Amino acid sequence: MNRVLARELPEHLGREVVLQGWLSQLRRLRALSFLILRDRSGTAQVLLHDPALIERIAALPHESVLEVRGRVAPRGDGRSGAELQQPAIDVLAAAHEPPPFDLFRPDLDLPLPTLLDYAPLSLRHPRRKAVFEIAGAAAGGFRASLRQEGFVEIHTPKIVAAATEGGANVFPVAYFDKTAYLAQSPQFYKQMMVGVFERVFEIGPVFRAEPHDTPRHLNEYVSLDAEMGFIDDHRTVMAMLQDVIAGMLAAVVSEAGPALALLDARLPDLPSTFPSLHFTEAQKLLAKVRPGGEEPQDLAPADELWLGAWARREFSSDVLFVEGYPAAARPFYTHPDPDRPGYTRGFDLLFRGVELVTGGQRLHRYEDYLQALARRGIDPSPFAGYLQAFRFGMPPHGGFAIGLERFVARLLGLENLREATLFPRDLSRLEP
Amino acid sequence: MNRVLARELPEHLGREVVLQGWLSQLRRLRALSFLILRDRSGTAQVLLHDPALIERIAALPHESVLEVRGRVAPRGDGRSGAELQQPAIDVLAAAHEPPPFDLFRPDLDLPLPTLLDYAPLSLRHPRRKAVFEIAGAAAGGFRASLRQEGFVEIHTPKIVAAATEGGANVFPVAYFDKTAYLAQSPQFYKQMMVGVFERVFEIGPVFRAEPHDTPRHLNEYVSLDAEMGFIDDHRTVMAMLQDVIAGMLAAVVSEAGPALALLDARLPDLPSTFPSLHFTEAQKLLAKVRPGGEEPQDLAPADELWLGAWARREFSSDVLFVEGYPAAARPFYTHPDPDRPGYTRGFDLLFRGVELVTGGQRLHRYEDYLQALARRGIDPSPFAGYLQAFRFGMPPHGGFAIGLERFVARLLGLENLREATLFPRDLSRLEP
Repeated sequence: MNRVLARELPEHLGREVVLQGWLSQLRRLRALSFLILRDRSGTAQVLLHDPALIERIAALPHESVLEVRGRVAPRGDGRSGAELQQPAIDVLAAAHEPPPFDLFRPDLDLPLPTLLDYAPLSLRHPRRKAVFEIAGAAAGGFRASLRQEGFVEIHTPKIVAAATEGGANVFPVAYFDKTAYLAQSPQFYKQMMVGVFERVFEIGPVFRAEPHDTPRHLNEYVSLDAEMGFIDDHRTVMAMLQDVIAGMLAAVVSEAGPALALLDARLPDLPSTFPSLHFTEAQKLLAKVRPGGEEPQDLAPADELWLGAWARREFSSDVLFVEGYPAAARPFYTHPDPDRPGYTRGFDLLFRGVELVTGGQRLHRYEDYLQALARRGIDPSPFAGYLQAFRFGMPPHGGFAIGLERFVARLLGLENLREATLFPRDLSRLEP
Repeated sequence: MNRVLARELPEHLGREVVLQGWLSQLRRLRALSFLILRDRSGTAQVLLHDPALIERIAALPHESVLEVRGRVAPRGDGRSGAELQQPAIDVLAAAHEPPPFDLFRPDLDLPLPTLLDYAPLSLRHPRRKAVFEIAGAAAGGFRASLRQEGFVEIHTPKIVAAATEGGANVFPVAYFDKTAYLAQSPQFYKQMMVGVFERVFEIGPVFRAEPHDTPRHLNEYVSLDAEMGFIDDHRTVMAMLQDVIAGMLAAVVSEAGPALALLDARLPDLPSTFPSLHFTEAQKLLAKVRPGGEEPQDLAPADELWLGAWARREFSSDVLFVEGYPAAARPFYTHPDPDRPGYTRGFDLLFRGVELVTGGQRLHRYEDYLQALARRGIDPSPFAGYLQAFRFGMPPHGGFAIGLERFVARLLGLENLREATLFPRDLSRLEP
């Protein structure tokens, strides 16, 4: 007999079926008991009358794995839905010991370190699991949106020869008799691949050796990267990003609807054209509300929060583009704004007041790269492989990188990125 | 005016269009010249009459990036197809220097080290590029097949605390004040996540510090991993794998058809049920043809090749399952075959005589893990996080891992895995 999922039970009224799942709870009443069985789709109620069977189940630790064969009937307690009656139960694998916290309660009220120490167990809670069903759907939406636009999925190396991109914040790797590094991003590789495929994307891990222990930092996370050639300027990239964000959200809604509902997620308001603000305009707005009124070269987290609230007020929008960041705040490969000396064609997308995406147009001429490196006093020799692409003709291009955990955390209102990471890595955490 | 791709030209006969791409070649005849422009879709021919324009283009190095505006007309040389006439040409980015080899010839006849040293350039060749269009489509087919079967896409950490799985072949990472390691596979994490999602998959990099410099080894590659719970035994996993391989091939055919055609790829014969052989039967067959007639505990590459040829002869099949590997040849978590002491429920899938997939049923009871580790003399303490999942109830489960580069190389008849890797990492290569 084929297995049926808990969620499918009402479709099988009157039939004999098999359920498989985890013993979530046994509710003992005087004359009968209810076994709550959890599987990947949800929970099902199994009505138990036989005292010997009830004792046998009561002796099992929660989380034991069961196979339950029985007849599907309307719930006897007057609630809508179906339950399993007259069950025969096989124990597929008894749990070795009872779990240290109750997985059947509506919420797991645990301090974050406990939640993470017990990740293999705590992730079984429906509300924890739902977060990652949403993440999986979001990654799928990213991919589907870009493939539809002719982007090719690539895989670039995570072990790299030189700590080129971000200076000191790299993890060294003992690579046979050499020292190598973990890639901080696929930036250089995805740009090189614009010369091959014009449009590429990659979903993969990136590694940042930043010694910050904050709710906003992870030392390993999933970056959703895209890069495209033959653009007019950064606005072409922003238009593509807008479609991708909409596609990610659409995939979450269509493929993880029950998870969204369980978490009571408020879906973001995405205007058909995302509002956009130049960096200098953002600074003017902020100058009015900042204590000192100063205009720094970048936006602080508090600035981003203020701008996010402003976008909600002004445009009823949960997203806001800030474009034209100063060159000083951007990497050497950022394309300058020819009309505004000192500013670039780099942008961020704020999502509910937090930077979700960084992107922009890049330089594409070899000579411009040599000049940009020289201006910053950077030795070009470790960049030989990267610069090769530009020596042999590259189109105007740009791209963006979305932090998957950040997208999920902002979508669901999670305060710490670690709650949107299956097995986070930080200053103090390498396990499980 | 919107850009048109080279491949779309015949759909625009009589119209004025814009092409953008790389100057692949200039064919100079007496009274006219042909500019061959390459973009992501293929090449287009542009007819040049104006001597000044011809001189201007002739002065540009190949691979310069151009925008060409002109009228689409039937080719004037009698061949079928369309060309662009009366062009106006803008140089979007002149190449800094001529490429060191010709990208317009049908084949890139370069030694492998040169091909790889010049990867940003050599990958632009249509035959090189096609390999990775196929890889991208194959990864997409893997994902689509599994999502359809209710698998959740996960991302697990690549920095891990202990070199647990494969002993010595791990890369150490300097992780702040600790030593960590690069994950050799997501094996432990995907098993733990069966307790959460029942069915999971991951596409990501794996790292093997094997000091072998052969065409069969890479130190970093892309692993397509899947794991599923509530199986009967390893045969449930093999049936799923069969559907996934068929799905990958179907995606390659539907999404990378032109790339397959360009490379003259012979599509594999996949019987509707893949043939399967027990390890002991394979050994009996091999004993007849092996010089010494001995029966070792594993299959050597030569054995796999012989079995691959045998499967073609006997079943007209390019794939062959070998199941029931000896316990000595398999990791500690492999489920034993209860009916054959010393043998397991582990399998390999050979693809054209090479191991493409390793999989099997795993142990699922906590006590069985403790015994299996003790039997091998392995200290269980570094496995605490992994074993937590089994302490709290895990269903019978199993899974498999497909090497993406290997799939592509065998599909296309590439002799060295490095030809199926954008930027390979090996004993001597960390760049580009």
